[in-house]
Amino acid sequence: MTIHSDFEPVPTPIPGIAHRTLAGAEHGLTNLAVWFQRIDAGGATPPHRHDCEEVVIVQQGEGTLLVNGAEQRFKAGDTLILPRNELHQILNTGAGVLQLLAAFSAAPVQVELPDGMPLALPWQ
Amino acid sequence: MTIHSDFEPVPTPIPGIAHRTLAGAEHGLTNLAVWFQRIDAGGATPPHRHDCEEVVIVQQGEGTLLVNGAEQRFKAGDTLILPRNELHQILNTGAGVLQLLAAFSAAPVQVELPDGMPLALPWQ
Repeated sequence: MTIHSDFEPVPTPIPGIAHRTLAGAEHGLTNLAVWFQRIDAGGATPPHRHDCEEVVIVQQGEGTLLVNGAEQRFKAGDTLILPRNELHQILNTGAGVLQLLAAFSAAPVQVELPDGMPLALPWQ
Repeated sequence: MTIHSDFEPVPTPIPGIAHRTLAGAEHGLTNLAVWFQRIDAGGATPPHRHDCEEVVIVQQGEGTLLVNGAEQRFKAGDTLILPRNELHQILNTGAGVLQLLAAFSAAPVQVELPDGMPLALPWQ
């Protein structure tokens, strides 16, 4: 059992995205990871997919989820549920900061780009 | 892909505990579930374990985590990381409401009591 108080996201090399791994492989987990991310207005994740399920809990702000070319708006209080291997992108299309908790059914999370190339995450 | 806005917990037969399954088997997930729970002051989960990993993000309030007889205090902003099959209990030992997000590496989550008997969760 581990309890920690480190939740503040730190800037990453991905423009506009700050990240904190709240729980993951570095805490001994093998099938579960939880991230806290802050995306600045106008920022976005790259389009990507992963061979694990993902649930995003929107803590603050609003944005747009692009899945296989379809787009859907979301806002604070919403839950986004993404099946395994679904190509997706999260964009902060609101005026303020977007804060997200993301849970994954894997640790570490192996991410790939649309062309199948692995994406080396700066925080893993 | 699913997006929903239903986050408000609803009262359960467990005294002092309100629950909302933000994501789980009912959304097509097989290896990931996320719950939002509100525990009233003085309330507690039963002591229990499950054959999956768990991460708790404390959204509001404070409480105590009992693991194998040892107790540790926690508060809003803390992350609790529980390995597979660790016997634990979460108690609201603060003055106000305790609000938790809990992620599990299974869907549905199979819970058992200390004596090994399955606990039928009222929301599953």
